[in-house]
Amino acid sequence: MKARIKITLKNGVLDPQGKAIAHALDALGFDGVGDVRQGKYIEVELDETDPAAAEDTVKRMCEQLLANTVIENYAYELEGS
Amino acid sequence: MKARIKITLKNGVLDPQGKAIAHALDALGFDGVGDVRQGKYIEVELDETDPAAAEDTVKRMCEQLLANTVIENYAYELEGS
Repeated sequence: MKARIKITLKNGVLDPQGKAIAHALDALGFDGVGDVRQGKYIEVELDETDPAAAEDTVKRMCEQLLANTVIENYAYELEGS
Repeated sequence: MKARIKITLKNGVLDPQGKAIAHALDALGFDGVGDVRQGKYIEVELDETDPAAAEDTVKRMCEQLLANTVIENYAYELEGS
């Protein structure tokens, strides 16, 4: 199956990349742009076919490597086999 | 409204970050990990409330700034007002 993982900064954590994007959008003439936050998006192909086992694996991947859970949240979707 | 934008490398474009993640997962003992691709995830708050206008704005943001359309694809979802 394929896991699609989104990793975002928690609320209250400063996001200079997001600020830079907001500033650049403003400089390009886009009006009405509020808060911009940048995160990471990771796609992982798994051999596992059992959804429950795959979910458990993805959760452990996020906790151990992909996200810094002190400052980041993660969310994932599992797709197909 | 809020735009949630995913930017991913096109197929065939080398992704050393993804390779590094796959290697690290393997080193941590995760088996059955296939291809890993890393992209970007950006959330933009827009003052715009008309969905069609917001969609047009987001598309232009992606084309002009957020994605390098030579090597990257983008996808977005719009949410609420």
